[in-house]
Amino acid sequence: MQNYSVDSEKLKDFEKKLFQAAGLSEADAMSVAELLIHADLRNVRSHGVLRTVPYLNKIRDGGASKTSTYPIVKETANTAVIDAQGGLGALAGEKAVAIAREKAKTNLMSMVVVRNSNHFGMGAHWALKLAGDDMIGFACSNTDLTMGPPGCKEPFMGNNPFAVGFKAGEKYPEFCVDMATSGVAFGKCKDLAKRGKAIPSGWMLDKDGNDTTNLEDCYMMTAMAGHKGFGIALIVELFATLLSGGVLSPDINNQDLTDTPELSSQCFACINISAFRDLAEFQKNAQDYIDRLHELPMKEGAGAAKYPGEIEYGCKQVNAKEGVVILETLADDLVALAKEWKVNADFLKGNPTDRQ
Amino acid sequence: MQNYSVDSEKLKDFEKKLFQAAGLSEADAMSVAELLIHADLRNVRSHGVLRTVPYLNKIRDGGASKTSTYPIVKETANTAVIDAQGGLGALAGEKAVAIAREKAKTNLMSMVVVRNSNHFGMGAHWALKLAGDDMIGFACSNTDLTMGPPGCKEPFMGNNPFAVGFKAGEKYPEFCVDMATSGVAFGKCKDLAKRGKAIPSGWMLDKDGNDTTNLEDCYMMTAMAGHKGFGIALIVELFATLLSGGVLSPDINNQDLTDTPELSSQCFACINISAFRDLAEFQKNAQDYIDRLHELPMKEGAGAAKYPGEIEYGCKQVNAKEGVVILETLADDLVALAKEWKVNADFLKGNPTDRQ
Repeated sequence: MQNYSVDSEKLKDFEKKLFQAAGLSEADAMSVAELLIHADLRNVRSHGVLRTVPYLNKIRDGGASKTSTYPIVKETANTAVIDAQGGLGALAGEKAVAIAREKAKTNLMSMVVVRNSNHFGMGAHWALKLAGDDMIGFACSNTDLTMGPPGCKEPFMGNNPFAVGFKAGEKYPEFCVDMATSGVAFGKCKDLAKRGKAIPSGWMLDKDGNDTTNLEDCYMMTAMAGHKGFGIALIVELFATLLSGGVLSPDINNQDLTDTPELSSQCFACINISAFRDLAEFQKNAQDYIDRLHELPMKEGAGAAKYPGEIEYGCKQVNAKEGVVILETLADDLVALAKEWKVNADFLKGNPTDRQ
Repeated sequence: MQNYSVDSEKLKDFEKKLFQAAGLSEADAMSVAELLIHADLRNVRSHGVLRTVPYLNKIRDGGASKTSTYPIVKETANTAVIDAQGGLGALAGEKAVAIAREKAKTNLMSMVVVRNSNHFGMGAHWALKLAGDDMIGFACSNTDLTMGPPGCKEPFMGNNPFAVGFKAGEKYPEFCVDMATSGVAFGKCKDLAKRGKAIPSGWMLDKDGNDTTNLEDCYMMTAMAGHKGFGIALIVELFATLLSGGVLSPDINNQDLTDTPELSSQCFACINISAFRDLAEFQKNAQDYIDRLHELPMKEGAGAAKYPGEIEYGCKQVNAKEGVVILETLADDLVALAKEWKVNADFLKGNPTDRQ
């Protein structure tokens, strides 16, 4: 297997052209491209250009509307409700972020909720975009069925992820907590199984709601920290779905269906830091706090303590310079897409690399 | 050991009189009494009248200021910063909730942060008070040092609890997620040790940051779900401490010191549901959602799935009717306090009970 280093700006332009070819406007295609590339830059590859094929298939087959105007169906000075009309989560998010930031500039706290949407990609993208240099950003989404309350035999919700981001001074511009409320990602289980390893106990449940270590028997995920993670997943449902009047988790569609929108719901919020404190003081305070975190005494081999998002921000710095790493199988998929949509992909396999 | 059933209204009046005798105004004493009784009503006894002695000692020795005026040091149309000046968390909370609710009536979203405070009791009390019938309430607090990032040998923060509450229709008036961000409460470890049982692996760490199952070696708690819980504890720190300009977790004082304020920070927020949807529709939607949760197929013996706060709300219904259960040792403490402060406590041991 040969990996490739790919210049992130070239890759973004490539993705933009693909989504333009699929029928999006240049601006909309750029929004989708940015969302995907941002994930690859942060090495969150599960949400990167790996999603190009499913996103394009969904546009092609009607599962992601090309005609949605993402109308605002209710609005106040600091809140809004958007109906995504089955459009792309990336575009609903783009609109929601712009509105939330604008409202929070004068009204200090804002919240924009979205219903009838699709997969919104990496939560950190939205939290950091909402945050900018001067706010705290919050984003969350319900997702298709994978998880339920402790003891249940059927899923009742997705692994409902949420993210909180802000700039903690010049040294730490991208503090970002971003997590799913499941114990682990299903991708990790598949990865272990591929290597012939058993799935650790406590991660997955079978059709009877019992713990399983076999990939074939996996039917549901456990929530992180049991009833605590279940409670947090319900908070996501409250903020995203119940506030937007969206489709409840048990009724939304599998994200893999190409001809049907997922009908997921999302919530985007901004808190303007200057409402509470002088922004420069806040950032200095936050930066000092993280400096102290870095100095904590650690167990041998544990390495320095890290703030949330530190690893991903480090990857972003490296990948912006050296290119994002594209695995050969993915490169092949992208080359095939390029042929189909008549987009130049010569650059994709130009720089073979040992990077993983 | 003999337990007692105690009428919650009588107990509240008793507590009010104690705190009045200790120097609080009648209204302030009532606020403290309500906070403590509410915890006992919900069977969250660790935050109930069990706290009477430490709270009174703290007032007596100066660790909780009797003279704080809880001034608002910065205010906008929908935000405020309160300096508790080392006063009681109960009173800072009472003021913050009143301001947050008032602001959210017209400004739809509000957030009030508090610095230089003390233990704020049961988070659910605040979340539900903030919520009322028409809003979503959010409350969180940093707490004294017990927990750190995965792999560390010294704590860096408390188990920073947070709570989210709202009324999910007439059937479910008190939906409330309320959790500490540690894996378990230290009280549970003490309880197991008292019964001669080992503490389960994964709960507690010794001075070297290694897992321990011995109570004597416990030095720190683990965060719930590892780095995820650590990330959530940092979000609490962000909302409570960094926004309020309060004392950072590594520098706040042990809550058990009677002559020194903890200097903890808190955050209280309201989201006015009518900003997003018709309130009645929202509540019907939420109620239907919980009805469906209750109907989920469950593993044998697991009982019906429960929404967060359901067990506590059930206890509240029973205890409001039959009285809260006071353990003999606690009853003895309260009787001694009553003598010291010259408050009538005859009712306390009037109804011996087998209830636990």
